Amino acid sequence: MLRIGMLTSGGDCQALNAAMRGVYKAVTNNSKEPVEFYGFLDGYKGLINSNFKLLTSQDFKGLMTKGGTFLGTSRTPFKLIDEPDEKGRNKVECMKQTYYKLQLNCLVMLGGNGSTKTAGRLAEEGLNVITLPKTIDNDLWGTDMTFGFQTAVEVATRAIDEIHTTASSHSRVFIVEIMGHKVGWLPLNAGMAGGADVILLPEIPYDIDKVAQAIQERNERGDRFTIIAVAEGAISKEDAALTKKQYKKKLAKSPYPSIAYQVAAEIYEKTGMEVRVTVPGHTQRGGAPCPYDRVFATRLGAEAGRYILKGEYGFMVGYRNREMVKVPLEEVAGKLKTVDPDADIIKQAKLVGISFGD
Amino acid sequence: MLRIGMLTSGGDCQALNAAMRGVYKAVTNNSKEPVEFYGFLDGYKGLINSNFKLLTSQDFKGLMTKGGTFLGTSRTPFKLIDEPDEKGRNKVECMKQTYYKLQLNCLVMLGGNGSTKTAGRLAEEGLNVITLPKTIDNDLWGTDMTFGFQTAVEVATRAIDEIHTTASSHSRVFIVEIMGHKVGWLPLNAGMAGGADVILLPEIPYDIDKVAQAIQERNERGDRFTIIAVAEGAISKEDAALTKKQYKKKLAKSPYPSIAYQVAAEIYEKTGMEVRVTVPGHTQRGGAPCPYDRVFATRLGAEAGRYILKGEYGFMVGYRNREMVKVPLEEVAGKLKTVDPDADIIKQAKLVGISFGD
Amino acid sequence: MLRIGMLTSGGDCQALNAAMRGVYKAVTNNSKEPVEFYGFLDGYKGLINSNFKLLTSQDFKGLMTKGGTFLGTSRTPFKLIDEPDEKGRNKVECMKQTYYKLQLNCLVMLGGNGSTKTAGRLAEEGLNVITLPKTIDNDLWGTDMTFGFQTAVEVATRAIDEIHTTASSHSRVFIVEIMGHKVGWLPLNAGMAGGADVILLPEIPYDIDKVAQAIQERNERGDRFTIIAVAEGAISKEDAALTKKQYKKKLAKSPYPSIAYQVAAEIYEKTGMEVRVTVPGHTQRGGAPCPYDRVFATRLGAEAGRYILKGEYGFMVGYRNREMVKVPLEEVAGKLKTVDPDADIIKQAKLVGISFGD
Amino acid sequence: MLRIGMLTSGGDCQALNAAMRGVYKAVTNNSKEPVEFYGFLDGYKGLINSNFKLLTSQDFKGLMTKGGTFLGTSRTPFKLIDEPDEKGRNKVECMKQTYYKLQLNCLVMLGGNGSTKTAGRLAEEGLNVITLPKTIDNDLWGTDMTFGFQTAVEVATRAIDEIHTTASSHSRVFIVEIMGHKVGWLPLNAGMAGGADVILLPEIPYDIDKVAQAIQERNERGDRFTIIAVAEGAISKEDAALTKKQYKKKLAKSPYPSIAYQVAAEIYEKTGMEVRVTVPGHTQRGGAPCPYDRVFATRLGAEAGRYILKGEYGFMVGYRNREMVKVPLEEVAGKLKTVDPDADIIKQAKLVGISFGD
Repeated sequence: MLRIGMLTSGGDCQALNAAMRGVYKAVTNNSKEPVEFYGFLDGYKGLINSNFKLLTSQDFKGLMTKGGTFLGTSRTPFKLIDEPDEKGRNKVECMKQTYYKLQLNCLVMLGGNGSTKTAGRLAEEGLNVITLPKTIDNDLWGTDMTFGFQTAVEVATRAIDEIHTTASSHSRVFIVEIMGHKVGWLPLNAGMAGGADVILLPEIPYDIDKVAQAIQERNERGDRFTIIAVAEGAISKEDAALTKKQYKKKLAKSPYPSIAYQVAAEIYEKTGMEVRVTVPGHTQRGGAPCPYDRVFATRLGAEAGRYILKGEYGFMVGYRNREMVKVPLEEVAGKLKTVDPDADIIKQAKLVGISFGD
Repeated sequence: MLRIGMLTSGGDCQALNAAMRGVYKAVTNNSKEPVEFYGFLDGYKGLINSNFKLLTSQDFKGLMTKGGTFLGTSRTPFKLIDEPDEKGRNKVECMKQTYYKLQLNCLVMLGGNGSTKTAGRLAEEGLNVITLPKTIDNDLWGTDMTFGFQTAVEVATRAIDEIHTTASSHSRVFIVEIMGHKVGWLPLNAGMAGGADVILLPEIPYDIDKVAQAIQERNERGDRFTIIAVAEGAISKEDAALTKKQYKKKLAKSPYPSIAYQVAAEIYEKTGMEVRVTVPGHTQRGGAPCPYDRVFATRLGAEAGRYILKGEYGFMVGYRNREMVKVPLEEVAGKLKTVDPDADIIKQAKLVGISFGD
Repeated sequence: MLRIGMLTSGGDCQALNAAMRGVYKAVTNNSKEPVEFYGFLDGYKGLINSNFKLLTSQDFKGLMTKGGTFLGTSRTPFKLIDEPDEKGRNKVECMKQTYYKLQLNCLVMLGGNGSTKTAGRLAEEGLNVITLPKTIDNDLWGTDMTFGFQTAVEVATRAIDEIHTTASSHSRVFIVEIMGHKVGWLPLNAGMAGGADVILLPEIPYDIDKVAQAIQERNERGDRFTIIAVAEGAISKEDAALTKKQYKKKLAKSPYPSIAYQVAAEIYEKTGMEVRVTVPGHTQRGGAPCPYDRVFATRLGAEAGRYILKGEYGFMVGYRNREMVKVPLEEVAGKLKTVDPDADIIKQAKLVGISFGD
Repeated sequence: MLRIGMLTSGGDCQALNAAMRGVYKAVTNNSKEPVEFYGFLDGYKGLINSNFKLLTSQDFKGLMTKGGTFLGTSRTPFKLIDEPDEKGRNKVECMKQTYYKLQLNCLVMLGGNGSTKTAGRLAEEGLNVITLPKTIDNDLWGTDMTFGFQTAVEVATRAIDEIHTTASSHSRVFIVEIMGHKVGWLPLNAGMAGGADVILLPEIPYDIDKVAQAIQERNERGDRFTIIAVAEGAISKEDAALTKKQYKKKLAKSPYPSIAYQVAAEIYEKTGMEVRVTVPGHTQRGGAPCPYDRVFATRLGAEAGRYILKGEYGFMVGYRNREMVKVPLEEVAGKLKTVDPDADIIKQAKLVGISFGD
C-alpha cells in the first residue's frame, strides 16, 4: 500500500487543483500497489490538527479548469513553526504524529517560498517530502517558472487592457496596482503585455520626477493618457535609502491604503493631471488557470508522481532550461528570484520606450 | 448636403464606438444627398470650442469591438452650463455658434442623464438634437436598457467569479465594490450572476447586523466564505436617515476610501472574520463591448440614422417593451430609473437566498 | 413533505445548471415542509427508466458558472413517445409510474420546443408539470427570451471576431456556420455583433448572385475581405421553392457536409475568390453561461420555485415584456418563434449595410 | 538616414502586430539618425511588386492587442521563387530592385519555415535581412518558442473546454480537430490543457483499436464521454507505412473533408458510440494575442531593433534556454522542430492517463 499525503499552503493560486490532479493520476494510474491519498485541509493546519479526508477519483473530476484549491489553504509562517499552536502543542511534533499515524510514504506540498522552508524542516525531521512550486509571483528560487504566474499575468493584463480603452477616452493618468510585494515579475510582464508606459517595481526604486517627466513627454507627443503599472512593493529612491525599520515606520503613518495611491498623489502634485487608481487585488489569484499553467502544473504533478513511484523524495520539482529537475529544498527556501535591473527583459522594455522611473 | 455633428459626453462606456458606427453607416449608406460627419472632440467641450474633425469611413473601421470612444469625452455639468467657460464665453452660445457655423442639420449626442439634460437645453435653443442612451448604470429614464450596461455586468461578474475561487480556498469574507453611486442595477445583476451571498444597493439601506447574521448563517451551514457585492453608493439604514447634507459631512470625515472599506470594518467588528476588499473600479467601463451591447448599440445607431434621414429630431432613441421608441428629452432629463425594492427581480433574488441586509 | 422531480431534455445548453440551482434554492429556502428533490438522469429516459438520484445541497454547489447539465440529457422525440421503448414498455405509462411511485408533487422540465410538447402530454395525463424555456436558438413560442441564447451568441460572435483578424490579413471570403436549423435568431445576432457583411438565415432565402454582388461591392470599395454568417438552415431561393420532400432528397445527395460548404463553392464559382469555412459547432452549446443567462436562468428558476410553493402547475415560466409570466403548455408546443423578415432588427441590419442575400 | 523595410509572410498569426510595434519603437526611440519604415503589403508580394506604404507612429497605435497583421500577408512558396511572377518577371530580381530602389538598410521579415527560407535566399543575394519566428505551430528550428503559439493554444483549449461541458451532458465521443499538419505541438498542448483523453499527433501514428480501447476503458470506469484532440495531420499506423505518394493518392480519394471525420467514422464503426466533430479552424489564428505572446513578441521585436541599430544582419532572432539568440538563417530554413515521441512531455501526458493511440 502506498499512502500519500497532500496539502496546499500559503496564498492560493490558479492551477493548484490541476497540479494535484496530475500527482493523483500519475500515481494511481501507474502504481503496482494500492494507493491511498490523504488531503490535509487548509494547509499545514490540517497536518498539525490531523484534519484530512481520504481522497477518491471523484474529488479530482473537473479540476483542470477550477481555480483555487479544493483542499483549502492557510498561511503557517515558518518563524512561528517552533512556537506552540493554539492548543499549546509543538506544531512540528503534531505534523510528525499525523504523518506517522497515517503511515504515509510521503507528503506532497504545493507552496511558495515560506511553505517550502517548512517542508524543508519536515524533511530534516525525517519525513519524505516532495514540493511543487506554486506562486503567482514566480519568485521561487531554483525554478524558471511557477504555476499560477502566467494566469495572474493574464488577469492583471486584462485589467490594464480594460483601463486602456477608458483611459484613451479621457485625458488622464491611470495607475493599476499589481500584486508583488518583494518581486516584480508579475507587474513587469503584465505591464509590458498591457502596453503600460511606466512600470514601477520593487527591484528598481523610482524617482517621481522621472515618472512625471515620462508623462509630460507623452503629453508633448500628443498622447492623451499615461498608464502606469505599479507593483504593490514599488518604492521610491528616497524610501529605498531608509533602513527596513525606518521604512516600516513611515508606511505605518502613511495616509494611503497602498503605494498606488501615494504615487497617484505624487503625480497629481507634480503634473496637475487627473489620476485614477485601480486595484485588481485578489482577482489576480482567481479564475480558471490559463492553458499554459494547466499544462505546466499537470507536467509538474506527473513528474512528482513519477518520483513517488520510484521512492525518491526530499526536493522540489522545478523547471530549468526546459527540463523538469529536482531542486534541493534547502536551495529553494529563504531565497527569492528577483528581477535583475540589468536583465535583458528590462533592457528590451526600455528599448520600446517603457520608463521604470529610474 | 446633410451635415451631422456627433459627440460623446460623460463617463465613457463600452459600445459608444459601435453606436456611432451604426449612425454613420445608416446615414451614409442610405442618404440620397452627400453626407458630412463632424466629430466633436472630448464631449461638449469640442462643441463649445469648435474642436472637431471631419470623419471618414476610415474612422469607423474596426470600431465594433473597440471599447471607449474614439472622439474622446469629458464631463460638462449641466449646472455649470450657464456659467461662462474658461475664456469667459457663454457656453451655450458657443455651442450654437459652432453648430450654425458648420451648417449642421443635426447633432447626435451619446450620453447619460446629465448630458441628455444639456442636449435638451440645446433643443430648446432650436438645435436639432438626437441622443442615444449611454451608461453602464442603466439608470436612464424612458428606456428599458442602455448600452454599456451588459458589458459592465460582465466585467463586474468576472471579478466576483475570480474572487470566488480564491474565497473558497480560504475562510474569509470578500467584498467586491461595484460601480453605482445612486442606482444599483449593475451591482444587483453582477451580484446575482456572480452568486454573491449579500448585495448592498443604494436603494435598499442595509442593517449591518443583518449582514453579519447572513454571514454567520452561512458559517453555520458549513459554507467557509461569504461574498458581498457592494454598490459604490450603498448606505446603512442609519446614514439613510440623515439629511443629504449631514451624510456628505459624515462621508468627508470618513477614514475609508470608499464604502466597501467601511462595510469591511463593520463586518470585522461584528464577526471577527478576515475581510478582503476588491475594487475593480474603472475596468467596469472598459474592454470590448459584449455581443449584446454591440447589437443593441448598432440598432440604436441605425434607428437614429433612420430618423436623421427622415428629418425627425428632438428626442432620445430608447428601447421599451422590445421596441425602439422616441423618448422626449424632457422626459429623460433629471430623472433616474432606480431599483424598486419591491421589484420582481429583488423578490427572486431573495427567494434564492440572497440577503440585501434589510 | 414536498417531493419534486427535475430533468433536462434535448440538446444541452448553458445555464441549465443555474436554472436548476434557482429552483432548488427557492424551494428549499422557503418551503415550510421538508423537501426532497429527485434528479432524473439523461432527460425523459431517466423518468421512463426510473433512473434518478436524490439531490442534496452539495449537488448544487458551484453550478452557477458551470455549462452543460449535471443531470445529463438526451433527446426523446415526441413523435416516438407513443411507441414502446427498447424494452417494449409504453413510455408514457413508465413515466407516470415513476412519478407516482416517488409520490412527486410535481415535475420540473427544462427543455425546448419538442421537450415541452412531451411535458404537455404528461400534463394532459394528470401530472403536475412546470417547464423552463431552454434553448440556444431562442425559438420558443410564448417567451421573449430563452436561457442559453445569449451565451451561444457570445461563443458564435467570438468565432467571428477571431476570424475577423485573420480575414483582414488575407484577401478572402470567410464563412462562419452558426447553429440554427429552422430559426435564425442566433446567426442574426452573432452576425450583427461580429460585424458580418452578409448573414444568411433560414427565414430569408438567399440569391447567390446577391451574395456575390455584396462581396464585389466590398472589393470595389477597397475592403479586402468579406465575412458571411451562415445559419445551418440557410436556404437558397431556388431550394426554398422545392417541396420539403424534394429538398430533403436534394440534401441527401449533396456532396457538402453542410450548407456553409455549399455556399462556399457557389461563391468561389461566382467570384473566383478564395473562401474559407469555419464551423464552431457544438462549442456554441458549451462553456460557462454569460452573466445575462445566469441572472435570467436564476430568475426563471426562482419563479418556478415560487409557483411550486403555491402549488400552481401546468405551464412554462416565460418572459414577456419584461415580466415573468405563466405560458400554457399547449401554447408553446409545436410552435416556433421565427425571425420575421420585416422585423425592425432586420431593417436596422440592412440600414447599416448588412446583406441578407435577398 | 536609416531605412527599414518590413513584411509579414505566410499564414497570419496573433502578435505579428505586437512584434512589428516592438521593432518600430526600439529603432525609432533609440536611433541617432532619422528613420524611415516601409511596410510591404501582403507579404513578399509587396516586395516583388514594390507595393508598400511609408509607416508613421500612427500606424503602430493600438497594435498590442490586435490580432492579424496590419500589413496583410500571403504565401509565396519558396519552390516557386525562381519561377517568374504573373507578369513574367524574375521574382528574386524584383525584390532586389525594390530593396535597392528604396535604399533600404535592411529588411525585417516575420514568418515561418518557408518564408525564412526565402529570406535566406535574399540574404545570399546580398540583402540585409533579419527574421522573427512567427507561427502558431511552434515548429521553427532554432528557437524554443515562436509567437502566436501560446495564443493558438488558448483558442484551441477553449474549444475543448466548451466541448467538455456539452460532452459531459451527453454520452458521446467528441473530436476536436486542431491545427498542425506536420507538427503536433499545438494539439499536444491544447489537448493536455483541455483535459483530452486521447491525443492524436502527426508524430505518433495511431492504431484505431488502441483509440477504441481507451474509449471503452473510460466507459467501463463510468466516464460517460471521451474527448479526442486530433491534429490535422494525424495519421494511422497503416497510412504512415505508405509512401508519401501513396498516402496523397489515398487522401485524394477520401470521402472525409479532414482526418477528424475519418477518425470519427472509424470510432463509430469500432464502438457504436455517437461521435461529434468540431473544427475550430481559422479561429486558432485569430483574436487578440495572449499576454505571453505580447511580451514575447515585443521582446523579439526590441531585440531585432537593437541589432538593426548595431548594423548586424543575416539571422533570425530566436529564443533558446531563456535567452534571445541569433540563429543563422540556413539553420532554420527547411528544418522542422517536431514532437519527439519519447519527449518528457509525452511521458508525462501518458503518466496522467492520456492515450496517444500508440
